[in-house]
Amino acid sequence: MSVLYPKVVFIGLGLIASSMALAMRAANLCEVIVGHARSKETRDVALEIGLVDAVFADPIAAVQDADLVVLALPVGAMGEMAALIGPHLKAGTTVTDVGSVKVAVILAVQPHLPVNVHFIPGHPIAGTEFSGPRSGFARLFQGRWWLLTPHPEVDTQAFARLCELCRKMGAKVDQMDAAHHDLVLAVTSHTPHLIAYTMVGVADDLGRVTDSEVIQYSAAGFRDFTRIASSDPTMWRDVFLNNKEATLEILGRFTDELAQLQNAIRLGDGAHLHAYFTRTRAIRRNIIDAGQDTSAANFGRDAKETTTKS
Amino acid sequence: MSVLYPKVVFIGLGLIASSMALAMRAANLCEVIVGHARSKETRDVALEIGLVDAVFADPIAAVQDADLVVLALPVGAMGEMAALIGPHLKAGTTVTDVGSVKVAVILAVQPHLPVNVHFIPGHPIAGTEFSGPRSGFARLFQGRWWLLTPHPEVDTQAFARLCELCRKMGAKVDQMDAAHHDLVLAVTSHTPHLIAYTMVGVADDLGRVTDSEVIQYSAAGFRDFTRIASSDPTMWRDVFLNNKEATLEILGRFTDELAQLQNAIRLGDGAHLHAYFTRTRAIRRNIIDAGQDTSAANFGRDAKETTTKS
Repeated sequence: MSVLYPKVVFIGLGLIASSMALAMRAANLCEVIVGHARSKETRDVALEIGLVDAVFADPIAAVQDADLVVLALPVGAMGEMAALIGPHLKAGTTVTDVGSVKVAVILAVQPHLPVNVHFIPGHPIAGTEFSGPRSGFARLFQGRWWLLTPHPEVDTQAFARLCELCRKMGAKVDQMDAAHHDLVLAVTSHTPHLIAYTMVGVADDLGRVTDSEVIQYSAAGFRDFTRIASSDPTMWRDVFLNNKEATLEILGRFTDELAQLQNAIRLGDGAHLHAYFTRTRAIRRNIIDAGQDTSAANFGRDAKETTTKS
Repeated sequence: MSVLYPKVVFIGLGLIASSMALAMRAANLCEVIVGHARSKETRDVALEIGLVDAVFADPIAAVQDADLVVLALPVGAMGEMAALIGPHLKAGTTVTDVGSVKVAVILAVQPHLPVNVHFIPGHPIAGTEFSGPRSGFARLFQGRWWLLTPHPEVDTQAFARLCELCRKMGAKVDQMDAAHHDLVLAVTSHTPHLIAYTMVGVADDLGRVTDSEVIQYSAAGFRDFTRIASSDPTMWRDVFLNNKEATLEILGRFTDELAQLQNAIRLGDGAHLHAYFTRTRAIRRNIIDAGQDTSAANFGRDAKETTTKS
């Protein structure tokens, strides 16, 4: 049998937890799935659509006899939850999380877990702009990376089992130092999100350009920003508060570089602009070649397009 | 018959011109299409794939007997081209352009055209990250806006005919003051593009985070920026140089607002961040309701997703 963890417990039942539950069931990776969420509505939905076999309002009741506990909460809520459930975990249990920040989560969670529990922090690089238990789908992790940032002295068997779980859900697994993870993600995710939120906020502020114009003519680039900026506010607040240093460092570089481009526009320095825009174009090609995005125009969003490509 | 312009001439044969040619042929809106492009390769491709019935290396030869001339060039090249072809246009010809900036184009083009020629500036809010004659497709304008910024004393018949052409290519037509157009587009398009270029440039610069990591883990938000930042460098250089004031104004607001969010992160002001991110989320919903984007997760790029939505 391919069962890796007889009893899996999700603490938090949002997009990632619900997708994991569906992927685990699809591949028969566990026998029983139970869940806890703070909101009664979320618990009811999760039970109703069959994500979990049982739900518990009390996280301590949920983690009884767990073989794997998945902390799928906003990053800022992980420490308190670990303190609550830590004393009630059986020896040998694996605990993982799916937070977008790793150093802060490790510092918040690790001290509360017994030494005979294996804590292996993780981060699946997958998601959509939707949240909640209904937003999950089993294929979310297909071909995506799942980064694990274990302690150097992690139990090798426990680590190997979690890697296998991630792979069987369709992901590719990579191991990384937690601090390095936080810097990489500040570049590929956290700073882009903050910038998108800001641009959408500016558009919203602008009295002279009415909302309806901004919305009607959004196809020119802005709509891509609005997708990013429609992600879960609590999750993102916690990301920025908990990856402060790396985000501020990348933001600093961003504002420096933007100031240079602003200056080039002001001075009419076309050569500088052209050289800059040419360099960035190549990166897109690399992302498509690496299988991390579609080469279809506009992400393939206009599915009925026919092209003249020959 | 629905022929609106017997002879149509495209000056420039990139994404927009090739899509227009295909859309016009599909709806039988013209009898003959000819084209000019500076590059021999572009001309050869356009002829080979049947976009045009004839190509000319000399733009003056191309515009002979034209009923409609479409300037589909980078914004910075329009004035010189108008000076060249202006004296060779027959009375009653309509000239339009498809530039992303309107005031600068009007100032550059209008003085070179004879008074008996109807110049009606235009801007289809449609495109992809691809360029060149092979990137066009007939459905590009379907459901998209085509903004026209005519002079108040425009010939009403000529204007009505151009509106009909745009509608028959699938677009919705709106009329707007040129300066207002440039401000709206600075918000919905020009500033977002500059920001995306900058973010991708920063990622490229960052020695400590290797290129391959940025690319591998790009699914977390960054890949959307790279799509925008892979657009045509010459076109975008000209946009910024020719919509300088509006772009710099919006950029100024953007950097102010970003500084406030940076400060909130620095000070750990979670309430400010959460309120900001909640506000921007609503705008996405409006864009989807307005039919300007798909509600499918991740733009529907993972087409084989199945969801648990009930």
